[in-house]
Amino acid sequence: MNDTLQRVGEQARRAARALARADGAAKAAALRAMAQGLRTHAAWLQEENRKDLDAARANQLEAALLDRLTLSDRALELMATGLEQIAAMPDPVGELTDTRIRPNGMQIARMRVPIGVIGIIYESRPNVTIDAAALCIKSGNAAILRGGSEAFHSNTALGKIVQDGLAAAGLPLHGVQMVPTTDRAAVGILVTMTEHVDVIVPRGGKGLIQRLSKEARVPMIKHLDGICHVYVDRDADLRKAHTIAINAKTYRYGICGAMETLLVHEAVAPAFLPEVAAAFATHGVELRGCERTLSVLPGIAAATAEDWDTEYLAPILAVRVVTSLDDAIDHIETHGSGHTDAIVTEQIGAARRFQREVDSSSVYVNLPTCFADGFEYGLGAEIGISTNKLHARGPVGLEGLTTLKWVLSGDAQTRGTP
Amino acid sequence: MNDTLQRVGEQARRAARALARADGAAKAAALRAMAQGLRTHAAWLQEENRKDLDAARANQLEAALLDRLTLSDRALELMATGLEQIAAMPDPVGELTDTRIRPNGMQIARMRVPIGVIGIIYESRPNVTIDAAALCIKSGNAAILRGGSEAFHSNTALGKIVQDGLAAAGLPLHGVQMVPTTDRAAVGILVTMTEHVDVIVPRGGKGLIQRLSKEARVPMIKHLDGICHVYVDRDADLRKAHTIAINAKTYRYGICGAMETLLVHEAVAPAFLPEVAAAFATHGVELRGCERTLSVLPGIAAATAEDWDTEYLAPILAVRVVTSLDDAIDHIETHGSGHTDAIVTEQIGAARRFQREVDSSSVYVNLPTCFADGFEYGLGAEIGISTNKLHARGPVGLEGLTTLKWVLSGDAQTRGTP
Repeated sequence: MNDTLQRVGEQARRAARALARADGAAKAAALRAMAQGLRTHAAWLQEENRKDLDAARANQLEAALLDRLTLSDRALELMATGLEQIAAMPDPVGELTDTRIRPNGMQIARMRVPIGVIGIIYESRPNVTIDAAALCIKSGNAAILRGGSEAFHSNTALGKIVQDGLAAAGLPLHGVQMVPTTDRAAVGILVTMTEHVDVIVPRGGKGLIQRLSKEARVPMIKHLDGICHVYVDRDADLRKAHTIAINAKTYRYGICGAMETLLVHEAVAPAFLPEVAAAFATHGVELRGCERTLSVLPGIAAATAEDWDTEYLAPILAVRVVTSLDDAIDHIETHGSGHTDAIVTEQIGAARRFQREVDSSSVYVNLPTCFADGFEYGLGAEIGISTNKLHARGPVGLEGLTTLKWVLSGDAQTRGTP
Repeated sequence: MNDTLQRVGEQARRAARALARADGAAKAAALRAMAQGLRTHAAWLQEENRKDLDAARANQLEAALLDRLTLSDRALELMATGLEQIAAMPDPVGELTDTRIRPNGMQIARMRVPIGVIGIIYESRPNVTIDAAALCIKSGNAAILRGGSEAFHSNTALGKIVQDGLAAAGLPLHGVQMVPTTDRAAVGILVTMTEHVDVIVPRGGKGLIQRLSKEARVPMIKHLDGICHVYVDRDADLRKAHTIAINAKTYRYGICGAMETLLVHEAVAPAFLPEVAAAFATHGVELRGCERTLSVLPGIAAATAEDWDTEYLAPILAVRVVTSLDDAIDHIETHGSGHTDAIVTEQIGAARRFQREVDSSSVYVNLPTCFADGFEYGLGAEIGISTNKLHARGPVGLEGLTTLKWVLSGDAQTRGTP
């Protein structure tokens, strides 16, 4: 097992050097060849996918998971279109910024370059195989992909399409490798191979991320929780607050940007809460309130201490009445996860303070938290969302898969006496 | 011990919130008050410093270390001037970049904000106490400083000056804390307190960094080795190559940017090596050569395999003759430490390839590697040099102590059907 992973790692490192040097045209050609491959080999991919689906049914997987696992005609076409979109994006590699001449005449600049080898660990959705491979190739990185065992045949087949695309463009086959085993020990090795892997991007449930965080020696670009707040300020436009609260919760319950706690200033709670509670009721969202919320909405359940720290990912919402902007910020500092938090207000001072002081990867004024997504931000594609403070923060696109090195040019200037 | 560190950590986290909100004027005032404090209390600082010096003499510390430990009048004045320079720099916090309007009318931007709590672990030089405190305050971060036990009294006294400066500017005292013990266990706790410390910057020898790397759970901004190369290309101007090689090695032997290996293209080795070897001899630099080097310079010692992987930090230089640019790049990939590497060439294609393909934090054309320094790069000050690929790479100034969060503003736009 260890030998297999070491070999994969060494091959990735070698391929990373070639990919870092590849020009944008070759990388785009590889992505377009992959798109073509998905279309040409759809029948074969679906045959391989059927093996996973049969096993999943035999293991009585839930319908929602089966749905995610299925490589339908539509799913394959979406992947192909996604590849073509990434192919058409500008190449992030080689960009020079901060160029300046120092007093001694030497020129200094920063050059955007690939990170090297990216390990991606994910669960059931086989489309991640294509998305992640495409983002890594485009950004000039080599990728080692480790999908869920329930999608092993699908991912192996998709990996073949990816490698055919690389070969068609004259790029190294080992630019993207699937970990060739379902053995769980492989993941533990992957996250500790600091000599061959530069960063791990885990995509999956909190259980997976927590386990990896404990074992990892390789840095991770990750988020654990999305306990997102919407704070309705005393100076909120209550119609906007209504629209934002409903969208933030009900756009999709299962995404990390879904609002999990609604904070309402005491001055507007009596006017705001009954109407929004009625709207949540029509969506089937269960409310759990603090004591002061219950005095306005006597029919709902009481929140426990645990509720403020829970990412429901479900039609459940915690509601708390706060006494001030400071009280709201304190609540978010204490219970938030640094993901995405929003204020609803018409008062510019409150908006400025909230946006400056809330220490989350994304901070919104008058927008629902469910916008937390790389496509919505205009990044074109997203490898994940990071609540790290170092390197990439918030939605991570191509730029998050690159780094800046310093490039200096001179004419034999020397450094003087210390 | 654990309780002490936990309390320090909690106090730092609270102070970090206040510092993140502090305006630039208050932070600059604190730094100027610190400069004033160093001058006003010079006699007392030197009295405290004498306790460390007496102990150091009793422990028979080397003269070089004693020198570094001494808070001379000149050393104190240099620290005070440094503080005033950092005070005068622009405040990095709050800068908005990448602002744009999305098609739905919402505005998106990135705001530069402090990281939070920075832990700095360093060895004998007490001036790091002042430099590190100043950079953290200026960038709006709280700092936990842990200096070497041999400078304990000096650092404690300097820490008092720092806290007085914070108080004079109305900023929280706990914005900068010295770890109040010389117990070595404190370091092990500091680097694992992920809830209270966001990043560790270790400054010291390789032994310290290696030990910390093994124990740390908090991310570190660090470099381990500085095995820096100068490659003299076949198309080098040999007078420039001479100047660059001599300066890269002899500017100062003990800095991480000092050249440790000289690579010379076979076509120019016979013309270049004898003259540069004679110059190195006058500097007292010992050369250790590969077989082909020895055929040109028969008088020098033979390099062993180990030499290519050694950071001498001393007047010793490994010399190797290579057959091509690719051979040079391969050598650097295999034996380099990703710190700083240089090519000497007049050929633009070779320069471009070297600068693009060498995967180091700084890559130079026609400049000596000893320029690897934040002041030389125009960063104004430097907390350290990073060979990390994520976040800060190369010399790290104020910007490396900050992070970018996303700030979005809208008018109750909603996200549509998934």
